[in-house]
Amino acid sequence: MSDRITIALDAMGGDTGPDVVLPAALKALDRCPRLHVILVGPEEILTATLKKHAMGLNGRMTMHPASEIVTMDESPVLALRRKKDSSMRVSIDLVNEGQADACVSAGNTGALMAISRFVLKMLPGIDRPAIITHLPSANGHTYMLDLGANVDSSAGHLRDFAIMGSELARAIGNIEAPSVALLNVGEEDIKGNEQVREASQLLAETDLNYVGFAEGDDIFLGDFDVIVCDGFVGNIALKSSEGVAKLVTATLKEAFGQSIFTRTAAFLALPILTSFKKTFDPGRYNGASLLGLKGIVIKSHGGADAPAFANAIDIAIREVEKQVPQAISSRLERILSKAR
Amino acid sequence: MSDRITIALDAMGGDTGPDVVLPAALKALDRCPRLHVILVGPEEILTATLKKHAMGLNGRMTMHPASEIVTMDESPVLALRRKKDSSMRVSIDLVNEGQADACVSAGNTGALMAISRFVLKMLPGIDRPAIITHLPSANGHTYMLDLGANVDSSAGHLRDFAIMGSELARAIGNIEAPSVALLNVGEEDIKGNEQVREASQLLAETDLNYVGFAEGDDIFLGDFDVIVCDGFVGNIALKSSEGVAKLVTATLKEAFGQSIFTRTAAFLALPILTSFKKTFDPGRYNGASLLGLKGIVIKSHGGADAPAFANAIDIAIREVEKQVPQAISSRLERILSKAR
Repeated sequence: MSDRITIALDAMGGDTGPDVVLPAALKALDRCPRLHVILVGPEEILTATLKKHAMGLNGRMTMHPASEIVTMDESPVLALRRKKDSSMRVSIDLVNEGQADACVSAGNTGALMAISRFVLKMLPGIDRPAIITHLPSANGHTYMLDLGANVDSSAGHLRDFAIMGSELARAIGNIEAPSVALLNVGEEDIKGNEQVREASQLLAETDLNYVGFAEGDDIFLGDFDVIVCDGFVGNIALKSSEGVAKLVTATLKEAFGQSIFTRTAAFLALPILTSFKKTFDPGRYNGASLLGLKGIVIKSHGGADAPAFANAIDIAIREVEKQVPQAISSRLERILSKAR
Repeated sequence: MSDRITIALDAMGGDTGPDVVLPAALKALDRCPRLHVILVGPEEILTATLKKHAMGLNGRMTMHPASEIVTMDESPVLALRRKKDSSMRVSIDLVNEGQADACVSAGNTGALMAISRFVLKMLPGIDRPAIITHLPSANGHTYMLDLGANVDSSAGHLRDFAIMGSELARAIGNIEAPSVALLNVGEEDIKGNEQVREASQLLAETDLNYVGFAEGDDIFLGDFDVIVCDGFVGNIALKSSEGVAKLVTATLKEAFGQSIFTRTAAFLALPILTSFKKTFDPGRYNGASLLGLKGIVIKSHGGADAPAFANAIDIAIREVEKQVPQAISSRLERILSKAR
């Protein structure tokens, strides 16, 4: 790896496309002098958007053409088969060809996963990719995976997710031996489904800092560095938590607006609400990593604004610096060679 | 059913036992003139607790002896096999013998489930019991099941849960044709695991008001009356939501205490916090039903206070009034006879 870090940005992904991606690129370039970005998308749209935001290309920001766009509700299989010149596909191709060290997209998660897997291929010994992100918790934050790349994960898959999550937490979170827990319905050994119980035995045999089972409330209240689960469960846990957080916020907002009395309180409570928002700002937690691939792919939330998208670029930079795919590969090899 | 409703109360269940159950009984008796309660537990403890709370037995509050106690962390299998005179077991026996119309316990969920299933037996055609409760949502509330009675539910089990949940919402929630959704990771038909997709086909063939898939955030933000899932998923969705709600509350509380300025705001914001607490008060939502059994069993939260436990008694009363087990049985029969 040279001193320079190049990130390909799918400029057309997400709800707002280049209007978010281009200003986000500028922010990220400002923060990281080593960074170079490649804006990927239809040239005329990119040129118009640059003009609109009074931005210009330069030595650290270049453009790469891509004529097609993968829409948010497009079938992943069709996006993979038919849109070989989409901004998403070309961004991933640039990583595969070594022209970029990583790519970031706010597009359709299923398509991003399918295309990444097809183009970049899986790391040796890893069967399935997983999606990981960090979430706020009472004791800092928790890395959680899989968040929806897989359903019906076997015990072996859960073991692989644990290895990948542990390496990411070590590299990005700077945690020497991240504590890893399996998400389960109870803390006793007898509870849970078969895959989870079997995965627990597999994990106990590794040199990971495996600490046993976590329950749902431990995601936000516990002090585990990494929590591992099947993608079906992870997706539902994440979305139901988002749901309750939104309901709480809406209820508070409604209550604050009810009378002149409560509106005064709202004004006085401004620092509180600001601090509250800061803790739960989805932007701070934007940027999920697709792990298990032979390259670095970061998924930004489709509705992310420019600061949040810039946060996803920062995560890509850190994964390049720490060479996360290589770290996962060598950890897996070490664990499997001991198991033999 | 006579006009009189008799509920057996496991006086020793939960974190605080009779100190919560006895005052709760008094509250419930005050609210419902038809109600009679049987306090089940060791006589000397019950007598001492009655005295402590300046309460006395009367025509509507009687006592039934039980010498043993099932602890909160006891193995369900051992509780079932070895503690045949526990307050939990005797409460369920009273329902089975027709001496009580329903029972309420704040004890160990696994033991309550195992003993209920063994003593009361399942309704004909129902393979597995399920746990259901109602949760606050942006549009009122949502009944959700299964919350942890089962892991690895088949498509047929999910269909049965849907029938049971729909009947409960109809009976208790007074909803004529409750909308029923299956919890899934995406709204498109292609997504999700095999059981959920197959269950969706089974449900489309019933006369339930089946409306398709719901995602995690729909539990708290959607307008589905009933959401159905496997117990592993349901337990984790519920607990992770509780976790995020607790984290939000703790963060707000900390922020309000930070300075004299924010403490003033907290004082002014009192009506807001009260309204907030009212919406999210776990007591309001206390009382989960064990469905699919030939009798009515209500699980109160182990940490419930007296008003919350009284709420669980109210749910038991409503289930007796509406004869929920019979309603489930006849609905199931109708659906299965049409499917034949």
